[in-house]
Amino acid sequence: MTAPAHHRFLRAVRRERVDKIPLWLMRQAGRYMAEYRALRKDHPILEMIRTPELAAEVTLQPLRAFDLDAGIIFADILTLPMEMGLDLQFVAGEGPTFTNPIRSADDVKRLRARPAAEALGYTLDAIKLTVHQLNGRVPLIGFSGAPFTLACYAIQGEGSKEFHLAKAFMYNQPKAWHTLLDLFAGMIGDYLAEQVKAGAQVVQLFDSWAGLLGPEDYREYALPHSAKVISIVKQRTGAPVIHFGTETGSLLELIKQAGGDVIGVDWRTGLDEARRRLGPDVALQGNMDPLRLLGPREGIELAARRALNAGAPHPGYIFNIGHGIHKSTPPENVAALVEIVHGHPVPEGPDA
Amino acid sequence: MTAPAHHRFLRAVRRERVDKIPLWLMRQAGRYMAEYRALRKDHPILEMIRTPELAAEVTLQPLRAFDLDAGIIFADILTLPMEMGLDLQFVAGEGPTFTNPIRSADDVKRLRARPAAEALGYTLDAIKLTVHQLNGRVPLIGFSGAPFTLACYAIQGEGSKEFHLAKAFMYNQPKAWHTLLDLFAGMIGDYLAEQVKAGAQVVQLFDSWAGLLGPEDYREYALPHSAKVISIVKQRTGAPVIHFGTETGSLLELIKQAGGDVIGVDWRTGLDEARRRLGPDVALQGNMDPLRLLGPREGIELAARRALNAGAPHPGYIFNIGHGIHKSTPPENVAALVEIVHGHPVPEGPDA
Repeated sequence: MTAPAHHRFLRAVRRERVDKIPLWLMRQAGRYMAEYRALRKDHPILEMIRTPELAAEVTLQPLRAFDLDAGIIFADILTLPMEMGLDLQFVAGEGPTFTNPIRSADDVKRLRARPAAEALGYTLDAIKLTVHQLNGRVPLIGFSGAPFTLACYAIQGEGSKEFHLAKAFMYNQPKAWHTLLDLFAGMIGDYLAEQVKAGAQVVQLFDSWAGLLGPEDYREYALPHSAKVISIVKQRTGAPVIHFGTETGSLLELIKQAGGDVIGVDWRTGLDEARRRLGPDVALQGNMDPLRLLGPREGIELAARRALNAGAPHPGYIFNIGHGIHKSTPPENVAALVEIVHGHPVPEGPDA
Repeated sequence: MTAPAHHRFLRAVRRERVDKIPLWLMRQAGRYMAEYRALRKDHPILEMIRTPELAAEVTLQPLRAFDLDAGIIFADILTLPMEMGLDLQFVAGEGPTFTNPIRSADDVKRLRARPAAEALGYTLDAIKLTVHQLNGRVPLIGFSGAPFTLACYAIQGEGSKEFHLAKAFMYNQPKAWHTLLDLFAGMIGDYLAEQVKAGAQVVQLFDSWAGLLGPEDYREYALPHSAKVISIVKQRTGAPVIHFGTETGSLLELIKQAGGDVIGVDWRTGLDEARRRLGPDVALQGNMDPLRLLGPREGIELAARRALNAGAPHPGYIFNIGHGIHKSTPPENVAALVEIVHGHPVPEGPDA
């Protein structure tokens, strides 16, 4: 059983009035929690992702520990390109790498777009199991990487500050680039739609590295493919989509244009400015600096109130941090944050 | 002998009309040039920096190869904290690290602010030698890291995507943080003023990681210290200052407030938007995506024209890339870029 439509997270997504500001935290299931580390000690990360019982358990850990308003299925954005034929390795201390990255138009041809139900059935099963175990308590969010962000990894082969190989490929081989992103877009759209069918009530498209692009390049090389993903999800399911990126201060209007019911904002852009630029017809999610959670309680409260004061006045606001929670975050700081957000007065007024 | 005051780079800095748009490129002396790699093979990087003849030679290499309108002294932003007591190591393939980073208020106390003329005399000597060898052909730019960016490295101890230890220190130990940045600011101001005395006609303050901060945090934790640096330079020399950072789309007004005759803009923010927000009374520098130089000639021209069309109409525009040139850049692409920029028609009209 999924969460009822009047759950405050779902109401905020639809820009309806809420009793309290809802919150969840990117990477809320993760290494900062002792429960996670205890499980992780015995299981490699890919095993955790591919074993529905383990993925469901990890997804539920932060929901047991904190009064968060949504779960997000435990998975990784890189499993999709992995299931298309890229060899994914998690090297301890180095982050994920693809040992056979895409470096040519021929490499693009060796990727196979597969039905998500077949390729990523383990995550769909994990969603079903988690939704069953949640029993309607809070909604579950599904997610995928966006075509641009997946292409960055697929070409670079590993995390990077500037993803120079990916951008050089983009500039030098625009045709192969668009073929690759279109291939990703189709499978991502299918994957997100299947996640909704499996019980995810909202899905988030992570375009984490969109901010590597200036506005013209985003419009040309990334936007059409993200728009395709969102259009597939909308046509097949109608489910709400959260569209997220970092360093997107110059891209917010274009990100909205690509689609999404909720636009994710990082801490570099004020939520008041984002609201002014994006207008009243989208919800916003964000935007506390995640590293504030490494600091003292007063600083957490100061930063949280800044986001709340800028975000909460307009219906359609979900509190979050601007990017994933850091692994060295003290869990008690997460508890303090939840208390601050839920204790924040919510302005009365009509739905947006 | 320094370059004459009517040199087009100096005119653009003063927002006067120019015959052609001047350009230089961040990290224009570097690994993308065979001449650099040939010299570097025989000399560790710190030796190159600390040997005025070698530093001058490397500074001149790109000026011999390309018709650039300014040189920038070959040095590294991390020599200043090194000369204050931090042990700097350049590990091959890993970038620079400090083996004894700042992790406590006591660590801050062990740093010694020294007169730049004594601590960094080798770079001042390199400037004198370079200016002599340039013989007035083009102006030479001096530079330093800004207090925030140096603190990021000094605390983290190495390069990082998010500099979480530095920001945690900032949030948890604000008093020690401000002591550290004030210490840096005094020595940076002295260093830049001495560079001007040695013959640098313009200095650039690199706050490369300023974009890690949201606007309120920048205002509180970084701005006062950068303002102190710029005020020292102005009071002691009156020389023009270029104030540069990346991912600063949300910070441009605050960066201008901290000071600078020229504001550096990266490729994420359009130069037309920067001009609109900053007004007519500063010059702008930027902002082509440096990775464009890894792509085809048509793409370089497209991106360069976008910057030129947005930047050139208002007097006070210096073409540059938005961050350092990538080491895999083909030198012939730099030559093509110089040709494009110098061939771009310059609007006529009064000085700004």
